[in-house]
Amino acid sequence: MSPFGFELLKSEGAARLGRLGTAHGAVDTPAFMPVATQGSVKSLTPTDLRGAGAQIVLANTYHLFLRPGHEVVRDLGGLHRFMDWDGPILTDSGGFQVFSLARLCTVGDDGVEFRSHVDGSSRLLSPESSIEIQQALGVDIIHPLDECLAHPASERDTERSLALTLRWLARSLAAHRKGDGGQALFGIVQGGVSEGLRRRAVEETCALGLDGYAVGGLAVGEPTALMYDLTDLVTGLLPAARPRYLMGVGKPLDLVESVARGVDLFDCVLPTRNARNGQAFTRDGPLSIKQARFVRDAAPLDRECPCEACRRFSRAYLRHLFMTRELLAYRLLSLHNVTFYQGLMAEMREVLAGGRFGAFRARFLQGYGVKSGGSEDNPRDTEA
Amino acid sequence: MSPFGFELLKSEGAARLGRLGTAHGAVDTPAFMPVATQGSVKSLTPTDLRGAGAQIVLANTYHLFLRPGHEVVRDLGGLHRFMDWDGPILTDSGGFQVFSLARLCTVGDDGVEFRSHVDGSSRLLSPESSIEIQQALGVDIIHPLDECLAHPASERDTERSLALTLRWLARSLAAHRKGDGGQALFGIVQGGVSEGLRRRAVEETCALGLDGYAVGGLAVGEPTALMYDLTDLVTGLLPAARPRYLMGVGKPLDLVESVARGVDLFDCVLPTRNARNGQAFTRDGPLSIKQARFVRDAAPLDRECPCEACRRFSRAYLRHLFMTRELLAYRLLSLHNVTFYQGLMAEMREVLAGGRFGAFRARFLQGYGVKSGGSEDNPRDTEA
Repeated sequence: MSPFGFELLKSEGAARLGRLGTAHGAVDTPAFMPVATQGSVKSLTPTDLRGAGAQIVLANTYHLFLRPGHEVVRDLGGLHRFMDWDGPILTDSGGFQVFSLARLCTVGDDGVEFRSHVDGSSRLLSPESSIEIQQALGVDIIHPLDECLAHPASERDTERSLALTLRWLARSLAAHRKGDGGQALFGIVQGGVSEGLRRRAVEETCALGLDGYAVGGLAVGEPTALMYDLTDLVTGLLPAARPRYLMGVGKPLDLVESVARGVDLFDCVLPTRNARNGQAFTRDGPLSIKQARFVRDAAPLDRECPCEACRRFSRAYLRHLFMTRELLAYRLLSLHNVTFYQGLMAEMREVLAGGRFGAFRARFLQGYGVKSGGSEDNPRDTEA
Repeated sequence: MSPFGFELLKSEGAARLGRLGTAHGAVDTPAFMPVATQGSVKSLTPTDLRGAGAQIVLANTYHLFLRPGHEVVRDLGGLHRFMDWDGPILTDSGGFQVFSLARLCTVGDDGVEFRSHVDGSSRLLSPESSIEIQQALGVDIIHPLDECLAHPASERDTERSLALTLRWLARSLAAHRKGDGGQALFGIVQGGVSEGLRRRAVEETCALGLDGYAVGGLAVGEPTALMYDLTDLVTGLLPAARPRYLMGVGKPLDLVESVARGVDLFDCVLPTRNARNGQAFTRDGPLSIKQARFVRDAAPLDRECPCEACRRFSRAYLRHLFMTRELLAYRLLSLHNVTFYQGLMAEMREVLAGGRFGAFRARFLQGYGVKSGGSEDNPRDTEA
């Protein structure tokens, strides 16, 4: 029997305060999962992640399948022990990365044949093998293989793709049921930008009574307003008693707006990827540490931030490290951004507990939202 | 008055146990200085360095002169505050890097004209400006500009070069005396591979009664046996009451052999640079984490090492991180290697205190020395 559970503690409008239970501990929601693409949140240790307040991380099935291989991870005691993260881990199905990274993808009913982006070797990812890989990794929350269409796609292509994803889901569930029961399987709601197909996706996915529901196929290039509308639509149809995970989202503003629409779980490479590009998130909006105005700036990135980068170093020093390509720059900016994201989620949980989410959201929109120039592009991408 | 001092606590043969005093705290010798080339020991924080046991770090004048500029560092409160390292800092003069990194060096009595390797700008490093830069950085131990000849050099070139270095030394000392007195100035003994010139260098440098003496012009490509012999020669001539610093050395075996010859201070990029190339130092000799034999190796790098890399991760995981170019690989291997070096120095201090250095040295030569294949090349280099 799966130790997985979800408790809905409180709601304010569509926004929800909750708690996920897993064999590796609890996760307070809404929660943001730092992305440990290849079994490591780039430049950070598990101790750093705990210090930043992270309770759960995401790892990519596609990457771990290719390197070091799921059997290696299994033989070494599973992904928790391999990466020394004793909290919950969620994996995607590998679908998104296959379609965005691999070469010569051929999609058939069987699955996806592709060539590895690492060594060009020929590989197959099927609904069954994706589940088997995730079982070998031994993570807490797994996902069924789904087809990820590029945006824009025609209604006809989207319908064909959704049908495939749903057929794969049935096979994934069968494979999942052969497992040891220690894992939760989430369904992935696809359906592109079509309201009708999204409705059908929710209906057919939820009919299977899964442990939670991911919203897929968003943050793939569509306008932000459309992403918000589709999120609204889908969360409005999903059962309240199960957690909702918006895959690959997003910017700070997107997190607040999606929590307002009933999302419980997020992941995105933005905090770490942007750190490596010199962008730091702060309460006053993002800043680019490359800018000349920071040359002699003795202030920390963010005066209120408790992270080591802010407690110990000036913007001037961080800029110097970044401009001279010192590895410590990427580490300190990553630590800061992950801390910022975790702090934002903690603040949302706090205002939800106090029934003040609406006021918080309005303030955030006026403050951070305006300063960050809104949310015009979608950051979903892989970090490898 | 300089707060600098050196206490010789104990000797065993030529090997010495001592203690440096500086305004930023004491350093137990023999000591190894991790290299913070650009004001950062690559990928590590000051907390990491303290945890590894480091008491003093080295920074490169040439690099900080070019970026961010010594005036910026001075205006931000000096290098200690800039990099948030509250222990002692030693800087070189910039000479070695100018000759190895800069373009179009022209050496004259005035100093060295060169083009920056960063932006091609035309720059001058003179005996006076080198001291002024180091004063602006506010570090504890500084060095006079010296000419670093490539190996091999003729006796005639070496003699001409030594004469220049000695003229520059007199000017450096004059500039140093205009400072606030908070810094110690070490002399640098040059003289190439010529016994006569090394003798002359020691004599004329020591006549100035400096705070300590560095041995320069070694570990630049000469055979290791010759490096050991020249170290022997020079330390045998230096005053016992002053610390001796062997610049740019070296491998673990070189450290033991140089301590045996009376050296107190070392620096080298080896622990961090080799970490980034996948080499880990262990009690059983160095290992390359790239090797396929580590794919499923659940053991730590070194069972006795107290560092986070060894306490928490397997060789298999570290190999995976390295093969997938994860930034965490460089960080964890650097932390391990710096910890290994500091542990080796601590062990040498311990056996010196107990009068057991001779036995330790013999054991080390038979153990680590044999396994590491001896010490055939010289690692001195810059990390930028």
